[in-house]
Amino acid sequence: MSNESKRQGGIRATQKEATGKAVLEAARAEFESVGFEAANLRAIAARAGVSAGTVLHHYGDKRELLHAALFDDLEETLRSAVAKLGTGSLETQLSELTRAVFRYYQRRPKLSRTLLKESLFADEPWAQKFNAQVHGVHGAIARLTEEAIARGELRPGVNGALFAVAYFSFFYFALIAWVQGAHDSPVTLVEHLVHQHLEGLRPSEKPPRRRKP
Amino acid sequence: MSNESKRQGGIRATQKEATGKAVLEAARAEFESVGFEAANLRAIAARAGVSAGTVLHHYGDKRELLHAALFDDLEETLRSAVAKLGTGSLETQLSELTRAVFRYYQRRPKLSRTLLKESLFADEPWAQKFNAQVHGVHGAIARLTEEAIARGELRPGVNGALFAVAYFSFFYFALIAWVQGAHDSPVTLVEHLVHQHLEGLRPSEKPPRRRKP
Repeated sequence: MSNESKRQGGIRATQKEATGKAVLEAARAEFESVGFEAANLRAIAARAGVSAGTVLHHYGDKRELLHAALFDDLEETLRSAVAKLGTGSLETQLSELTRAVFRYYQRRPKLSRTLLKESLFADEPWAQKFNAQVHGVHGAIARLTEEAIARGELRPGVNGALFAVAYFSFFYFALIAWVQGAHDSPVTLVEHLVHQHLEGLRPSEKPPRRRKP
Repeated sequence: MSNESKRQGGIRATQKEATGKAVLEAARAEFESVGFEAANLRAIAARAGVSAGTVLHHYGDKRELLHAALFDDLEETLRSAVAKLGTGSLETQLSELTRAVFRYYQRRPKLSRTLLKESLFADEPWAQKFNAQVHGVHGAIARLTEEAIARGELRPGVNGALFAVAYFSFFYFALIAWVQGAHDSPVTLVEHLVHQHLEGLRPSEKPPRRRKP
């Protein structure tokens, strides 16, 4: 391959990537503006400045476009949120994570309902992709838990994987309540639930009574 | 109104109720057998031994029929599960509740996925009905928590309403994981999560050191 044709190939690849990004960005804007049901491929193509044929060539149908538009975007949000976690207590780190991820959903409230419904009840291949995404964050939380045990914040032998599942339970419950309009401050709800989970509900142990001689 | 026409009216009301029940039972069987998407009103009418017109007269469309068939049934399951709770510890009572409600979902696994998706992301008027249903169980759990505090099982001042939200978070997480094929024993998962939530993750308090004289 000549240097000139390599250069041309490079330009084409860059253009293709730019077109893909523009289509996904247009899809997110269109879905948020008119809702998933009402959105149509022609309008998305027009927003991206490409033909409807180009959109169809890249993505088979509207649902596939939705998944492509949302999953990659959420993936990036999750990765960067986990990477940016500070060196505070486990409770502080989880608050940071919760805030960062909710900010993502809050940027596009209408779309969030669709995203959540589609990700929790996805069919293959998206179910597997979504599970892999959750699995990644799950691993990160289990690691944070191990570090908290090492710092003496948590009891030795605490099940970090189970705690990560508890965190996800709280997160999704609050997110579902929020997209359904049943809760105004999902971040605070998650924080309270995590706090109660860490502290437990049992009476604090009484110091052993001194036996009488 | 003569005694004869009262008697006739009574028979008609009983027949109408019986028809309604037969249609709902047929709808549940048809939805479970072929799935919500593929189910059609004609087949449901045939199962119930009535005309398609009768089904349409009682229920506007397939989605309305789905909600009617599922919500009343689940409502009855929840009410009877709460009523039957024994006098064990809070943890035992919650296990009983979890088992009873999961048994309901496990009887019709295919339908459960639809039920869950439809109830978590319902539009009005079903969203409100579903919220009222959750609210009822929420209140029952908050009461059980108060009783557990009174028995000395939990710390005084524990937030029972928040604990009820934690329970729901665990329950729905396990249920979603199960309908998605990602978890085999949802009841055990809920039990482990509830146990960890009750016990907490903090190091147990050390008895205060005796000060040296």
